Amino acid sequence: MDLTTIIGLITGAVCISISILMAGSLAAFWDLASVFIVLGGTIASTIISYHGKMLKNLKTIFSKAFKKADFDLNQDIEMIISIANVARREGLLALEDTMAGTDNPFLKKGIMLIVDGTDAELIKNILETEVYFIQSRHSEGQSMINSMAAYAPAYGMIGTLIGLILMLRNLDDSDSLGPGMATALITTFYGVVLANLVFTPISKKLKARSEREVLQKEMYIEGLLSIQEGENPRIIRDKLNAFIAKRELNMEKAKDTKANPEVKALGNER
Amino acid sequence: MDLTTIIGLITGAVCISISILMAGSLAAFWDLASVFIVLGGTIASTIISYHGKMLKNLKTIFSKAFKKADFDLNQDIEMIISIANVARREGLLALEDTMAGTDNPFLKKGIMLIVDGTDAELIKNILETEVYFIQSRHSEGQSMINSMAAYAPAYGMIGTLIGLILMLRNLDDSDSLGPGMATALITTFYGVVLANLVFTPISKKLKARSEREVLQKEMYIEGLLSIQEGENPRIIRDKLNAFIAKRELNMEKAKDTKANPEVKALGNER
Amino acid sequence: MDLTTIIGLITGAVCISISILMAGSLAAFWDLASVFIVLGGTIASTIISYHGKMLKNLKTIFSKAFKKADFDLNQDIEMIISIANVARREGLLALEDTMAGTDNPFLKKGIMLIVDGTDAELIKNILETEVYFIQSRHSEGQSMINSMAAYAPAYGMIGTLIGLILMLRNLDDSDSLGPGMATALITTFYGVVLANLVFTPISKKLKARSEREVLQKEMYIEGLLSIQEGENPRIIRDKLNAFIAKRELNMEKAKDTKANPEVKALGNER
Amino acid sequence: MDLTTIIGLITGAVCISISILMAGSLAAFWDLASVFIVLGGTIASTIISYHGKMLKNLKTIFSKAFKKADFDLNQDIEMIISIANVARREGLLALEDTMAGTDNPFLKKGIMLIVDGTDAELIKNILETEVYFIQSRHSEGQSMINSMAAYAPAYGMIGTLIGLILMLRNLDDSDSLGPGMATALITTFYGVVLANLVFTPISKKLKARSEREVLQKEMYIEGLLSIQEGENPRIIRDKLNAFIAKRELNMEKAKDTKANPEVKALGNER
Amino acid sequence: MDLTTIIGLITGAVCISISILMAGSLAAFWDLASVFIVLGGTIASTIISYHGKMLKNLKTIFSKAFKKADFDLNQDIEMIISIANVARREGLLALEDTMAGTDNPFLKKGIMLIVDGTDAELIKNILETEVYFIQSRHSEGQSMINSMAAYAPAYGMIGTLIGLILMLRNLDDSDSLGPGMATALITTFYGVVLANLVFTPISKKLKARSEREVLQKEMYIEGLLSIQEGENPRIIRDKLNAFIAKRELNMEKAKDTKANPEVKALGNER
Repeated sequence: MDLTTIIGLITGAVCISISILMAGSLAAFWDLASVFIVLGGTIASTIISYHGKMLKNLKTIFSKAFKKADFDLNQDIEMIISIANVARREGLLALEDTMAGTDNPFLKKGIMLIVDGTDAELIKNILETEVYFIQSRHSEGQSMINSMAAYAPAYGMIGTLIGLILMLRNLDDSDSLGPGMATALITTFYGVVLANLVFTPISKKLKARSEREVLQKEMYIEGLLSIQEGENPRIIRDKLNAFIAKRELNMEKAKDTKANPEVKALGNER
Repeated sequence: MDLTTIIGLITGAVCISISILMAGSLAAFWDLASVFIVLGGTIASTIISYHGKMLKNLKTIFSKAFKKADFDLNQDIEMIISIANVARREGLLALEDTMAGTDNPFLKKGIMLIVDGTDAELIKNILETEVYFIQSRHSEGQSMINSMAAYAPAYGMIGTLIGLILMLRNLDDSDSLGPGMATALITTFYGVVLANLVFTPISKKLKARSEREVLQKEMYIEGLLSIQEGENPRIIRDKLNAFIAKRELNMEKAKDTKANPEVKALGNER
Repeated sequence: MDLTTIIGLITGAVCISISILMAGSLAAFWDLASVFIVLGGTIASTIISYHGKMLKNLKTIFSKAFKKADFDLNQDIEMIISIANVARREGLLALEDTMAGTDNPFLKKGIMLIVDGTDAELIKNILETEVYFIQSRHSEGQSMINSMAAYAPAYGMIGTLIGLILMLRNLDDSDSLGPGMATALITTFYGVVLANLVFTPISKKLKARSEREVLQKEMYIEGLLSIQEGENPRIIRDKLNAFIAKRELNMEKAKDTKANPEVKALGNER
Repeated sequence: MDLTTIIGLITGAVCISISILMAGSLAAFWDLASVFIVLGGTIASTIISYHGKMLKNLKTIFSKAFKKADFDLNQDIEMIISIANVARREGLLALEDTMAGTDNPFLKKGIMLIVDGTDAELIKNILETEVYFIQSRHSEGQSMINSMAAYAPAYGMIGTLIGLILMLRNLDDSDSLGPGMATALITTFYGVVLANLVFTPISKKLKARSEREVLQKEMYIEGLLSIQEGENPRIIRDKLNAFIAKRELNMEKAKDTKANPEVKALGNER
Repeated sequence: MDLTTIIGLITGAVCISISILMAGSLAAFWDLASVFIVLGGTIASTIISYHGKMLKNLKTIFSKAFKKADFDLNQDIEMIISIANVARREGLLALEDTMAGTDNPFLKKGIMLIVDGTDAELIKNILETEVYFIQSRHSEGQSMINSMAAYAPAYGMIGTLIGLILMLRNLDDSDSLGPGMATALITTFYGVVLANLVFTPISKKLKARSEREVLQKEMYIEGLLSIQEGENPRIIRDKLNAFIAKRELNMEKAKDTKANPEVKALGNER
């Protein structure tokens, strides 16, 4: 469960509700016809914009924003360093056995390619192609939600135009002017809220998550290629640490000094 | 027939119609003069924006959004693997015969270049140039429809300005104020609906389709070059599978395990 | 004469005029002071934005959008193939004579460089630099017209603000409210029409034309380098055909089968 | 303390306050409910948009805009030149001792890699990876504040829509129309001020600062690699001076002519 | 003195003044409080957005848009060709003396590097780094003025919101409604005029000027490297001419045919 998505949505809904309740009732903001035109129109335009297979993924894409995704790079570095140590002590072929313990398909694939004695250039090629497609699938999903964030306010405006046109044609009863405009504006309200509280934030969350996943995969590739070249685990750690933010690095360093003796030797160099 | 385009357009039109009918009549939204200024102006600006040859393609480009386009990458991979198996068993020259069965001009051209003994670099060069131009022709078409998506609301605004200016000059009859403004707003309504229900979604659909087609062609190139280099079909499949989304890959894997024995051997490596 | 520019401008003007005439008179939309502020302001800001030399080109740039520009790539390919045939039969030096017949300065320059025995890398370098600068001069012109497309609605808004401010200060006579606002809105009308019927479409036309010209030049470079390397005319045609859209290619193929015997041999390969 | 941030914020607040006070009282612009919807909504959408770890950094990111950051490139160049002189006179290994005096972790790390005899390519690789991640962490922070700059006016509009809808529904009392609209507009006012006086300027400041830091790090890398290659300090200074703006360079040159004799010899060359 | 900047600013101011005077008095558009909020706010946000050193440059950046900058590429080419002729006849070392006559620091630096016998790769590296930083300093200045172009209308809107809110709270006196709104709109007027007549055009002028300067510097580098390699002045001229627009080239060619005999020989090749 991704807590920030839930907390943010609830906070936003509460803020909007409270500021409505301070001056009126929530009932004034519930209008089925307005829901119908804004949500229906947004969905209709999204259906046209993408092909069937991508639309089927839409539910998965949204649900992703609610699922916890933990990319613990520190832990990943430890894993790669321990693999590097095995490779140094027992040779590359010994990695086949250590691999049994991991349920990380990307890392497994990379190690199997190393064990198979695949050429470094080819390994890099295969793994980077995979990262490229992970990235492009993610950005496909984000683009769908970005489209929805653009369609929602547009249909909000369409709904308001419909309301205004119908109201202006029957201006005999000047008492109905106010409530008529109020109802017309509700679709704009829906469109703006949907775009700014739901679609845009979720799209940004998915983008940030995708960047973290790609970063992790790039770190895996860097590590795997270093292992294959038989580089010193100390140098490997140095390379991989660059992938971690300074603040996180310091915390990790504190742990390291106790656990990893080969880092100590490097201690005064950093 | 591309169902999503049809379904989306109908859904959108129904949503808008219903929300009009709930508060008034559709007749209030039909105004020939407004159709004239919005559609006519959009077409006029599009005619200026592009040269004759591209404008002739406009009908083809729109119709593309309604035609079914099925890029079944799984099936494409099977085809490439079977070609690779033939090449391995019977040599590259044997491919000339297998090619007779396919009606895929891009793949045929690539295989003929291999059979001719063309240099790998040159094959890559020729095929990538072709992909580059497929891509640039597609983006030309999308840019035309994007222009229309930008012109439509602008002419909607022009129509509304015309209506407002004419109405405001004759404010004697204050009863006509409402209906006058209602009519003036209809062009804005047309412009926004055209942009958000027709032009923008169709441009996005064409973009998504173009990306799929380019992806397919890039997979063909990857496969063809691997075949020429005589790579192991197992490695080729590994490379090409990266082009498929994870979700689809799993379904394909299930099928594979039964049908393709060379994959089984690799089974525990992934 | 570029017909699409003329036809588009007339169509647009007619559409706008008719929709005005259906509800009022054109005279209501003629206001010299409004022309003055919108056009004058747009020109003033454009003068500040660019240096003298570029401003002198402005007339040339606009007139370009009205001149016919025919880039017949099929004909260009035939010319390059016939040059390639001469080069194959009679050697590169024989090209000096064939060159006398062409009035194509870019192609001439390239062939003279070949005849001079210039290094392929240097030829590519010189010609690509030329293409790069053609491209950057074109985009300079487009950027000027894009600026005008942005300034025009801004000065339309400035004019409307001036009109509104002056009118609102003297609200004693409530009868003048309507006509006052009508006049104030005319500048906005001018700005939006200028931007969407004139500046933006012309800028897009110039962009599309520039892309076609650059494409043609890139095809020339590809052809010239292939000729210098003494490649087979059949392969050269294959390479160059990739520059042409599929639809056009088919038409050209139909002609080819009759005229060019060396294509026939390749017929079943495609 | 970054004075420009403080001075700018105060100047902006004073300008806005004075122009309010000239025509009314500040009390008219204080509305707790409006603060609640604009700030609350902006925070809610930001919480959804990013994952927990990044949100924890938000305070640090904002505080950065208030802390003094001095990147004195002239001083950095002097330091690198003095290191280069030591390296020339006493050899690369002697750098380990000089390094003790500096508290510059990036420079220290680079020099330690040189002392360790690491390959130039690898040093460049490690340090550039570090710069790349510094850059991407910075742009992550800027993107968060940019998001807030986009959400704030959106929630300002949502608040105004809420106010308008509630007011229009109860138009009986036409006296409350004015004050009602005034209150509704306050959220828009808050949103626009937050975006243009706080979020956008702070995001730009962080961007400018990040660029300066990256520039400094790139200069370090250039200098370190030149030191390792044993280049002439004169040439190194020439290279590094390119990193400094002309205006600053002249001031530095004036100092140089007195202090650094090796520059004098080069004096008439520049 | 850059005439286009002055002429443009005066033209713009005259256009706006005349269209005001045709319907009212300029006095209606002078409001000190409005100047205060728009200019003060814009400056405040700009102060926050950039660090002190850049802000000090602001005056220099603006004054640049008013100073004449003449990049006569034709003259530059003549100079480079004459240097190339000297280098061919008398050797690279002879360039040290010819250099005494020029007050072009960039060219001088390049020639000194050649005379010093510096490696071509290193010369290119040093000079391109210098160009890169010239470019990035320029774009820093443009970004500051672009920011001001964005802040000015925002503060115009803030001022209008302040005016509207204060006016709407005191709607008792319906006579003050018009003048109140007129005053409120003046800040929007100021913001839009500042952005579209001053900031945006000046930013565009600086961009165009920067591009010309970078082009000149790139031509210098191309020329210097060709001189070092001892290339034929004829070939050098050919390369450098590509940097000049066709229209200018023709004028230059006319002059050339008389003055430079080595071009005549090449005459029929172009």
